[in-house]
Amino acid sequence: MIFAKVIGTIVASQKEENLRGRKLLLCKETDARGAPIDGYHVAADAVGAGEGDFVLITTGSAARMTDQTGKTPVDAVVMAIIDAVDIDTPRIAVRKGAGK
Amino acid sequence: MIFAKVIGTIVASQKEENLRGRKLLLCKETDARGAPIDGYHVAADAVGAGEGDFVLITTGSAARMTDQTGKTPVDAVVMAIIDAVDIDTPRIAVRKGAGK
Amino acid sequence: MIFAKVIGTIVASQKEENLRGRKLLLCKETDARGAPIDGYHVAADAVGAGEGDFVLITTGSAARMTDQTGKTPVDAVVMAIIDAVDIDTPRIAVRKGAGK
Amino acid sequence: MIFAKVIGTIVASQKEENLRGRKLLLCKETDARGAPIDGYHVAADAVGAGEGDFVLITTGSAARMTDQTGKTPVDAVVMAIIDAVDIDTPRIAVRKGAGK
Amino acid sequence: MIFAKVIGTIVASQKEENLRGRKLLLCKETDARGAPIDGYHVAADAVGAGEGDFVLITTGSAARMTDQTGKTPVDAVVMAIIDAVDIDTPRIAVRKGAGK
Repeated sequence: MIFAKVIGTIVASQKEENLRGRKLLLCKETDARGAPIDGYHVAADAVGAGEGDFVLITTGSAARMTDQTGKTPVDAVVMAIIDAVDIDTPRIAVRKGAGK
Repeated sequence: MIFAKVIGTIVASQKEENLRGRKLLLCKETDARGAPIDGYHVAADAVGAGEGDFVLITTGSAARMTDQTGKTPVDAVVMAIIDAVDIDTPRIAVRKGAGK
Repeated sequence: MIFAKVIGTIVASQKEENLRGRKLLLCKETDARGAPIDGYHVAADAVGAGEGDFVLITTGSAARMTDQTGKTPVDAVVMAIIDAVDIDTPRIAVRKGAGK
Repeated sequence: MIFAKVIGTIVASQKEENLRGRKLLLCKETDARGAPIDGYHVAADAVGAGEGDFVLITTGSAARMTDQTGKTPVDAVVMAIIDAVDIDTPRIAVRKGAGK
Repeated sequence: MIFAKVIGTIVASQKEENLRGRKLLLCKETDARGAPIDGYHVAADAVGAGEGDFVLITTGSAARMTDQTGKTPVDAVVMAIIDAVDIDTPRIAVRKGAGK
C-alpha cells in the first residue's frame, strides 16, 4: 500500500458504464511521514476521503476488493484515512494533519 | 490510474482471436495537468476516445472490467475522458483541451 | 501493452507441466516507432510471431487471456503483430518492418 | 517476494469495512542481507510479525492468499519471518537478527 | 518472464500456513545471456531448480498457475530451467552454464 495526500478530484462526464457515480481522487504520493514525493495517483474512494486527508492507497486487483469498487475498472483505491504512523519504539508518531 | 493523451492508433491484422474488432490506442503519458511525460501506453478503448483526448487509463486486471474488454488479453484500457482536474481549493481547474 | 521486436527463442527442457509445447519468445522492448530501448521480455506466443516481427506484448494476468496461454504460468504474451502505428494526423505511419 | 524489516504500524480509525481488525505494518525494504534500501511498504500481517523482524513480503493478488487477507483490499502481506538466507555454498548464512 | 540465476535459499520457520513445505529460492536477476544485473527475486520453486541454475521466473498472479503454487501467497515462481537462449540467426546460443 502507498502513502498519499488527497489533493483534488477528477471530473469526467464520459466514463465507462461501471464507473458512473464513483468518485475519483487525485492523490500526491508521500513518504511514511506525509512529505510529498514524486508521482501522482488517481484512485477511487472507498472511505469518504477528502482534500488534505493523509491516506493509504491499495493498487492492483486488490483495489476492487471494496463495496464501492467491486467489478469496476479501477486499479487504485483509497481504503484508509491514516490517524498516525507509529515508527519504532519509543513512539515517534506521525499524527493526522502532519506534513500538510 | 494514469493520465494520458491519445495520439494515435495501432493497426494489426494478425491479432489474438479475442482482440478482433477492438480498437487499440497509442497514448502519451501526461501529468495531472496534461503535460506530456516519458512513456507510451497502448490501451484498448472503452469510451470512444479519439486523438487529442485527455483520458484516464486503468492498467492491470482492472483493464478487463469493461464491456469492451472482458476476457480479452489487454492490460490497459481508456475508461474515462477527462473534462477537468480540480486541484485543491480554490479551484485551479485543468479544463478539457488544456495542454494540447 | 508494450511494443517489442522478437529477437530469439528460449530453449528449456525442464519446464513446468502447463508450459510444455508452449513457445517462449525473447523480445527486445522498443518505442512506438520500433526503435530498441532498454529491457528484454520473455513472452509466450499467441499469434505465430517469429524473429524480426514488430509486436505487442500484454503483461500480467491478461497474458493468460488467450487460447494458447490460459491457466499457464506466463506473465507476458505476444498477442498482435503490428502492421502500422498511426501517430497523429496527418498520418505518419510506422509501417511493418520499420526500425529493423 | 521482497525482503523487509518491520519498523512500525499504521493507525487508521477510518478503514474500508473488510480491513477492520487487520494489522497494517510499516516495513523498510532491505536487500538479501537485511541492509535497508530505498522504499517503504505497508503490508498486512499474516504471521504475527513485530517490529525488528526480518520478513518476506508478497505483493499483488497473491497478498490475498492467506487466511487473514482473503477478499480484503490489501496489495502486500508479510507471510514469512526469515530465520536465515543461505547464499551459495559454502553456507554464508544471514541469520535472524542480522543487519538490525 | 525474467532471467535469473539461483544463488540461495530462504529459511523461515514461521511461514503462512499455505507455504509450509514450499521451497523459496533466492535468485539474482540476469540479462538474456546470464550476466547478473541489479535486483534479487525470492521465488517459489516449481521445477526442482538448484543453486547455479539459469532459470525463468514468472511474476504476479501467474506465479500461482503451477501445481506447487496454486492458492499460495507467492508472487514469483521458477517455472523453467533454461538450456539455451537462441538470439537471432545465425544461432548465437547462450548454452546452459554460461555466465556462471
